[in-house]
Amino acid sequence: MFLKKKFQIILVSLTLVVASCKAQTKSISNAKKSNKQEHPSLILTKTGVEKIKSQLGTVPLFDETLAKVKAEVDAEILNGIEVPIPKDFSGGYTHERHKKNFIILQKAGVLYQILDDETYAKYVKDMLLEYAKVYPTLPVHPQTRSYARGKLFWQCLNDSNWLVYTSQAYDCVYNYLSENERKHLEKDLFRPFAKFISVENPKFFNRVHNHSTWGNVAVGMIALVMDDDKLLETALHGLKKDNIDPNEKDNDGGYIKKKGQKVGFLANLEEPFSPDGYYTEGPYYQRYAMYPFLVFAEALENVKPELKIFEYKDGVLLKSISTLLNLTDADGNFFPLNDGQKGMSYYSRELVSAVNIGYFYGDNRTDLLSIAKDQGEVLLDDTGLSVAIGVRDGLATPFVKKSMNLSDGKNGDEGGVAILRAKGSKEELTLVMKYSAQGLSHGHYDKLSFSLYEGGNEVIQDYGMSRYVNIQQKGGGNYLKENTTWAKQTIAHNTVNQDEISHFSGDFETGSMHHSEKYLFDVSNSNLQVVSAKEINAYPGTNLHRTMAFVNDETFENPYLLDIIKINAENEHQYDLPYYYLGQIMSANFEYTKSENLKPLGTKNGYQHLWKEAEGKSGTGNAKLSWFNKERFYTLTSVVSNDDDLLFTRIGANDPNFNLRNDPGFIIRKNNSKDVYFVSIIESHGHYAPVSEIATNAFSNIKNLSIVYSDDAYLAVNIENENGDKKMFMFSFKDNSKTSTHQIKIENKTYEWIGTYKLTEINK
Amino acid sequence: MFLKKKFQIILVSLTLVVASCKAQTKSISNAKKSNKQEHPSLILTKTGVEKIKSQLGTVPLFDETLAKVKAEVDAEILNGIEVPIPKDFSGGYTHERHKKNFIILQKAGVLYQILDDETYAKYVKDMLLEYAKVYPTLPVHPQTRSYARGKLFWQCLNDSNWLVYTSQAYDCVYNYLSENERKHLEKDLFRPFAKFISVENPKFFNRVHNHSTWGNVAVGMIALVMDDDKLLETALHGLKKDNIDPNEKDNDGGYIKKKGQKVGFLANLEEPFSPDGYYTEGPYYQRYAMYPFLVFAEALENVKPELKIFEYKDGVLLKSISTLLNLTDADGNFFPLNDGQKGMSYYSRELVSAVNIGYFYGDNRTDLLSIAKDQGEVLLDDTGLSVAIGVRDGLATPFVKKSMNLSDGKNGDEGGVAILRAKGSKEELTLVMKYSAQGLSHGHYDKLSFSLYEGGNEVIQDYGMSRYVNIQQKGGGNYLKENTTWAKQTIAHNTVNQDEISHFSGDFETGSMHHSEKYLFDVSNSNLQVVSAKEINAYPGTNLHRTMAFVNDETFENPYLLDIIKINAENEHQYDLPYYYLGQIMSANFEYTKSENLKPLGTKNGYQHLWKEAEGKSGTGNAKLSWFNKERFYTLTSVVSNDDDLLFTRIGANDPNFNLRNDPGFIIRKNNSKDVYFVSIIESHGHYAPVSEIATNAFSNIKNLSIVYSDDAYLAVNIENENGDKKMFMFSFKDNSKTSTHQIKIENKTYEWIGTYKLTEINK
Repeated sequence: MFLKKKFQIILVSLTLVVASCKAQTKSISNAKKSNKQEHPSLILTKTGVEKIKSQLGTVPLFDETLAKVKAEVDAEILNGIEVPIPKDFSGGYTHERHKKNFIILQKAGVLYQILDDETYAKYVKDMLLEYAKVYPTLPVHPQTRSYARGKLFWQCLNDSNWLVYTSQAYDCVYNYLSENERKHLEKDLFRPFAKFISVENPKFFNRVHNHSTWGNVAVGMIALVMDDDKLLETALHGLKKDNIDPNEKDNDGGYIKKKGQKVGFLANLEEPFSPDGYYTEGPYYQRYAMYPFLVFAEALENVKPELKIFEYKDGVLLKSISTLLNLTDADGNFFPLNDGQKGMSYYSRELVSAVNIGYFYGDNRTDLLSIAKDQGEVLLDDTGLSVAIGVRDGLATPFVKKSMNLSDGKNGDEGGVAILRAKGSKEELTLVMKYSAQGLSHGHYDKLSFSLYEGGNEVIQDYGMSRYVNIQQKGGGNYLKENTTWAKQTIAHNTVNQDEISHFSGDFETGSMHHSEKYLFDVSNSNLQVVSAKEINAYPGTNLHRTMAFVNDETFENPYLLDIIKINAENEHQYDLPYYYLGQIMSANFEYTKSENLKPLGTKNGYQHLWKEAEGKSGTGNAKLSWFNKERFYTLTSVVSNDDDLLFTRIGANDPNFNLRNDPGFIIRKNNSKDVYFVSIIESHGHYAPVSEIATNAFSNIKNLSIVYSDDAYLAVNIENENGDKKMFMFSFKDNSKTSTHQIKIENKTYEWIGTYKLTEINK
Repeated sequence: MFLKKKFQIILVSLTLVVASCKAQTKSISNAKKSNKQEHPSLILTKTGVEKIKSQLGTVPLFDETLAKVKAEVDAEILNGIEVPIPKDFSGGYTHERHKKNFIILQKAGVLYQILDDETYAKYVKDMLLEYAKVYPTLPVHPQTRSYARGKLFWQCLNDSNWLVYTSQAYDCVYNYLSENERKHLEKDLFRPFAKFISVENPKFFNRVHNHSTWGNVAVGMIALVMDDDKLLETALHGLKKDNIDPNEKDNDGGYIKKKGQKVGFLANLEEPFSPDGYYTEGPYYQRYAMYPFLVFAEALENVKPELKIFEYKDGVLLKSISTLLNLTDADGNFFPLNDGQKGMSYYSRELVSAVNIGYFYGDNRTDLLSIAKDQGEVLLDDTGLSVAIGVRDGLATPFVKKSMNLSDGKNGDEGGVAILRAKGSKEELTLVMKYSAQGLSHGHYDKLSFSLYEGGNEVIQDYGMSRYVNIQQKGGGNYLKENTTWAKQTIAHNTVNQDEISHFSGDFETGSMHHSEKYLFDVSNSNLQVVSAKEINAYPGTNLHRTMAFVNDETFENPYLLDIIKINAENEHQYDLPYYYLGQIMSANFEYTKSENLKPLGTKNGYQHLWKEAEGKSGTGNAKLSWFNKERFYTLTSVVSNDDDLLFTRIGANDPNFNLRNDPGFIIRKNNSKDVYFVSIIESHGHYAPVSEIATNAFSNIKNLSIVYSDDAYLAVNIENENGDKKMFMFSFKDNSKTSTHQIKIENKTYEWIGTYKLTEINK
């Protein structure tokens, strides 16, 4: 009851005050100064703690999380305090120990508040004192790989993680400590720590980048605990002076800071997020950044409510939570756009925070409760309690993922990512098409690329990054050389390569200046969902235009994916279009020759990593390849000429340390082409289970796929199924208006349609 | 109540009549002739049906199965009857249609009995009449690949499947049909059908082989329905005359029939089953054969109880059910020994029958009920009802798989298969070591090979067969050429190859004359389980002796697998020992060079299918390779000399149709060796989840592995962990007595032990 009322009040205030967003950004010193600060006040509040205590034992999800956290912290307390001298990369002992310390510190602080048990406060105190003992004399970390080395960790990024969590612990035990203890900790640990990751590392701190977000938030969180508005100002708006060379780049090849660039937390919120809540680095890093963004927003909302942080940029923080949840497959795994480690999902602790905070400070969206239920844990704070109560009270509704277009860029005008979702006979088919901006230093050179899922299974995969995060054996858990030489390259993606050169020649500066352009996104008809985008800068003098559609045709078991790429170039080039299917080849409708010895397909730009397993040509106008994966059959049918090369590849050449996954690929190569089309269809069909040994619908239903009309402005494609039923897909490349009328003539018959595209049945 | 009593009576009779097994085999015409037969009487009985009817609606598992079967059959009745002219291989339309027909026929018959609804009887009648219409003029099947072509299907085997199921349908509608209809069906369909698969195909029928079992049972089942004792005699003891050339072989390279070989159902029960219930072809085919064995046994028990078929050969049929359930990994998948398709499991319909029949006619073993629960369905007969009642009444107890040794061979003296199971920190580790006989025509040349599992995950895999059963695109779903050139070859397995030649030179005749010999199987100490076996015929003049042990050492996270192979040869040879690990290589402790171009490792005996990816040598005495799979780390540590070659391979060379899986392997090669040891340890350690990105225990705990003593009779191996703790494993190769005392002297210190082996801590 109480909560419900509170939410209504928030709701009202939200609808009233959509004003003065810009005013907020100016300076917080003008804002109404808060009274002498209470503790805790960051993620826990005095009233919140009272409420939690009163509900203990009645809210299963909260109680279970509490029991789990208590068991974990109790075990660590038994183990004793370890604050080793920093030495290792991620994955190594000292790294993992310090990481565990900050996680346990935060949890112990919370337990102290909720359980009123001084054991936990003492543990926090003792460990903080240990850190205060060693920190003043710590040199920078002995591992030298980072552009911004930390002290506890090999990079300032991880030091910032430490401070974000530890600030919360400090807040929780603030009143337990004596004033002298607090003075000591602030003087010898927290202030120098904050200074080190900001003033002493401006290249790390004064940037727009997920690293800096962590840095800004770390400083901001400790500023809030210490009630230091000046330090908070630095967190929100960055350092006034930094002397960063505008040409300087970081380890990943990203610019440190462009001239005139705004910095600090608010700039990091302003710039990388599009108005749709898409974070330009991609979902993997959005997930990583969500925690500092949201936990600091929560703290700001508690301590400096006058900042109205959740309304900033039209409520982008809350919007981004929903966006991120939509950037997942059926199992909750994030699409591995740009640098993304596969398997990262909304089960991560960052998303537990995001969902809890999103529920509490957002509209109490009951669909978030179903995600929280799946996650099976909540934050041990006001937000987690409200979620657990909602789940207990049966308020959860399904989280329904829809087809959506997510703009990229600060103003939403730098391309985007489109997600098409189509109901299949067994599971949903999902297309992810990327026509975004570069994505900062974690971006890949893959304009107009795509990946395809069926439920939680990858059908056509995006490789993701080449890195084994935190696995020490693999380069200390850091980015591997192959991330640059393979994973970022264009050939590693399901998109067009010209002359075996990556988009923008793989040049980060050039890539960062451009983005693709949306041409069409139309999901108004669930049986024919279309996305279309253009890229004119990846290869100067060459225009690429890709159109992808889910077609739900009742004569097919599942919706199929139609894929049309139009290329217009000033000169002749070689064009390669790879499809990184997963599974075992079942059959091909063309002759091919397996290589007796395997050689790399090329020498650079990622081609050096592909073994050429086989090569073929088709004389029938269609190349058809079927494969089998996870009990299902798939077929790619592509319009090809007699001259096109059909290449079977496998990743893994020039990989001296077995860093790459040895996955297969199929490349359609068009030689000496100027103006040319790639037209393909991908079907999911049938089923085979080794237990029943029954194969159903094991063959493609496409008898023929052909281009029946093309000129500069229009294309018509005929799709004939095995029964001989024909459909024609017509498309206008020059006019994307919904209302224009178009006309083409094929064999003396005139076809007319309104809008950019049309799918029509045609007589046999 | 009633059932319980009935079981007690059976139980009593079982314990009383363990006599006269041999007498039974003579001739059934001497047996007391049954009275005029009732119908149904094969898998359903009149009293059984009454009992089922009285329980309908009160036994969930039975009711659910009934509803599912009814829905399936109703849909087929709506679809109408299709009896196409036979044309296709398995996977093709006519094959799959006829297969579906016999399955639906059987179910429709049962539904008629249980539901008293003539719709089902009429459907069975109409379809049988359709078959009776076409059968008399059907030629043999147009596909010519089989040594024994069927009429409805490409091989008699599938025709026999048809008759086994259809006999049951006929039995169920027997009394529904008029006498004239029965006469017509028997004259035009069943008798010529039975004659065709027996008299007209003696090479198929008069054999010891799973094919013949189906043939025998098909004839036997229809004989029982028709109450034809002469025909039943043929089923039980085979054709009196067959004129089979004793040198003739089938498509798979197996002998049709050796001179003097007993044939018929009883011979097929007698010979391929060992006294432990192990079926010499391996679990995949045992599963396949279980259905005809058990369904015919059930029918015989009902119609000819005087045969006491379940007591035959000391109750081997019931024993074999338990054996087969033990030949599975944690997910219920059968170990793919010999020709086995991976993924086949105890969820198959054959195992539903086996578990139901095993429960009913066996001891009402309540652990079978837990398997039935997992299977989620039961047979719609007396046995299924009793299982469903047991499950309903909460009688199920866990089915606990134990370490066990399964002898091979009719008399249990032709080697065997050992299964060691050791509790791990996360899941059970399972070793499957094969030292069996050849396994008839489905046998592989892999003496002393092994596979290793952790829960349901393969750690070191057995390749299984090269075949995509019933998937038409892949050679009509039949065995692929690569089954012979790769899957059966020794190099495809985790065992020793001499001079790149398979065991017995890959010659089936030679292989069939021999088997390995058990040396030791001792699982009395769960912390040190040992199996050891010898092979002296695979390579004339060379003795192989492999010993494998699970060692549960508390300083390790999981029990590790110790693997010792002793080789003694008359001349110098090259020895290759492959380990087909699955996953991504993490690290190696030795230098290796990746190949710039991939070439096949060899030219024949399977070597032509391996790409050589890299080659290295170790100068430290140990080669250590770590990999990562399904969130876990694994490490192989092997004692090597400076001269040993360390080869990284990948399957897939000389595979023109992409039939093979491109899995990795690691081969230790010892050159120019006469008397030599392979000594290795495989550890499972640690964990990594992409959601938490935390790697724990990612490194091997073996600091050093070394041979500290060896002579012709003894070996001592030192195992040193990362803390420097040393243990020594001592083994006697010449004396496997449990009571003998052994003594060796190492560096002036004498070690003495009793029994074949000893693991002892030694001072640092």
